[in-house]
Amino acid sequence: MSNEYRHILVAVDLTKDSHKVLERALPIAERNQAKLSIMHTLEPLGFAYGGDIPMDLTSIQDQLDDHAKQRLAEIADPHQVPKENQHVVVGMPDTEIHRFAEEHDVDLIVVGSHGRHGFALLLGSTSTGVLHGAQCDVLAVRVGKKGEESDE
Amino acid sequence: MSNEYRHILVAVDLTKDSHKVLERALPIAERNQAKLSIMHTLEPLGFAYGGDIPMDLTSIQDQLDDHAKQRLAEIADPHQVPKENQHVVVGMPDTEIHRFAEEHDVDLIVVGSHGRHGFALLLGSTSTGVLHGAQCDVLAVRVGKKGEESDE
Repeated sequence: MSNEYRHILVAVDLTKDSHKVLERALPIAERNQAKLSIMHTLEPLGFAYGGDIPMDLTSIQDQLDDHAKQRLAEIADPHQVPKENQHVVVGMPDTEIHRFAEEHDVDLIVVGSHGRHGFALLLGSTSTGVLHGAQCDVLAVRVGKKGEESDE
Repeated sequence: MSNEYRHILVAVDLTKDSHKVLERALPIAERNQAKLSIMHTLEPLGFAYGGDIPMDLTSIQDQLDDHAKQRLAEIADPHQVPKENQHVVVGMPDTEIHRFAEEHDVDLIVVGSHGRHGFALLLGSTSTGVLHGAQCDVLAVRVGKKGEESDE
């Protein structure tokens, strides 16, 4: 059957929209008896400051990491996504999502999409970044109300 | 059930990749008992010349239109997509796809994706154009071999 996926990667931003994205992916995984991995990408601390800060940010990064893992678990645990399939990765979202997808033979990436227009489009969004250069199928799940910008 | 679509729009470029895109959409439509529409967008003749040609291109446009309709039928007919659900539209792909989607309450757009990198990415592609500003889910089906550019 042509519509068969073996490993589905759900990329979430930990906002409330993450539930909708995961809930769209779950029946696809079930139907295909596919492995489902869920991932959140944390931008490296200091990135917004040009990456050149005269401080050791390691322990703060660790705390942020733990916090993100907890929030990811709150989203994934109720849907029985095993802990070992829950990933918090530090890096740029598209790069890390593509890297994970290639290293783990992901054949479908599911990501939220905000349907942005105009200026926001120039700023880029994770969903279009993920689509660029993805070597597998990508399902962009529309989040936020129709015609409305959602929080990211 | 959360994974429910009522009207699926398959946007194709009439290359051989179109078969793969349609074949990915068909089981989704079947499972959801959704209406499936298929669409090809023809850029207006003369667009590549700045749109200012001192000739009447109407009859040539009509011929191109007929040719596209025939090719679309060759793709869609074997899968029992009814004629009234086969559309050839003149215009810019993203604009026309979004317009059709909004006017016909499409809740999933299925489009081919070439997984382009670098320069080709700057030129834009239909799949990212469709994702920008889409008010519904978008499934980008990876076409062409892994790591290879496909014809468009």
